[in-house]
Amino acid sequence: MNFQDDHTYMQAAMEEARLAASRDEVPIGAVLVNHETGKIVARNGNRTIELHDPTAHAEILTIRELCNERKSQRIPDYDLYVTLEPCTMCTAAIGFARIRKLVIGAPDEKGGGVCHGAKFFDQPTCHHKIEIVHNVMADECGQILKDYFKTKRG
Amino acid sequence: MNFQDDHTYMQAAMEEARLAASRDEVPIGAVLVNHETGKIVARNGNRTIELHDPTAHAEILTIRELCNERKSQRIPDYDLYVTLEPCTMCTAAIGFARIRKLVIGAPDEKGGGVCHGAKFFDQPTCHHKIEIVHNVMADECGQILKDYFKTKRG
Repeated sequence: MNFQDDHTYMQAAMEEARLAASRDEVPIGAVLVNHETGKIVARNGNRTIELHDPTAHAEILTIRELCNERKSQRIPDYDLYVTLEPCTMCTAAIGFARIRKLVIGAPDEKGGGVCHGAKFFDQPTCHHKIEIVHNVMADECGQILKDYFKTKRG
Repeated sequence: MNFQDDHTYMQAAMEEARLAASRDEVPIGAVLVNHETGKIVARNGNRTIELHDPTAHAEILTIRELCNERKSQRIPDYDLYVTLEPCTMCTAAIGFARIRKLVIGAPDEKGGGVCHGAKFFDQPTCHHKIEIVHNVMADECGQILKDYFKTKRG
């Protein structure tokens, strides 16, 4: 058993975000945690450029990896930690996968689909009830993105 | 050069939907068409059960296949034909891939993300302009789903 707190898991997601930046991908990272054991079971960062895949966001990659390993398209015993509020696509995928808890680092007013834009989980057509925790190490998570885009503009 | 009309392409998507039903997957099919040549370049149906992947919808599978082949995460010269209004996840993926035109068979009041639910392309945060054609062979496309769920209910 290896119970850790939200900050520790978010730090692991931040490591994945930094690794994504080092690959010149938009630095967003995600980890999936087994709710029972507390173990990180999947971790990744964005790889849309590397994989030539517009769906290869950190969240989708970790969900696809774990679902494939578990031989199930639903993983209701797992919690997802992600450094930036998931986009509309990922938010819906998180719902389809029946993720138990979603822990978000920085909010994303422009592209987010949880508390902004589509607000997927608030739609009457969404029946998946999910626990959501906002603003965990939001400044640190957001800074990784700010640093990356500052370099790109430089 | 092989120009065909919307009905012909939708019939190809319907074939994919029927193949999905024969695999005991929710019968939704999609084809991607090169706008210049009129050729179908990717075609698939839902495979979420087979692939243990909640993101393996017909639209996502065809987009990922063509993007991988084209070595690009954007395919703005291609049109997508799909038998049912795409869900929120797929609608956002279609936007990320910069699909040129989206042709929809049956509307989906419950799970759709184009004209229902999240209405992704209508959000002020969505900057992708896409041509959308609705209700192409809507009754025939919807009937495939009705027949499938009738069988499932026994």
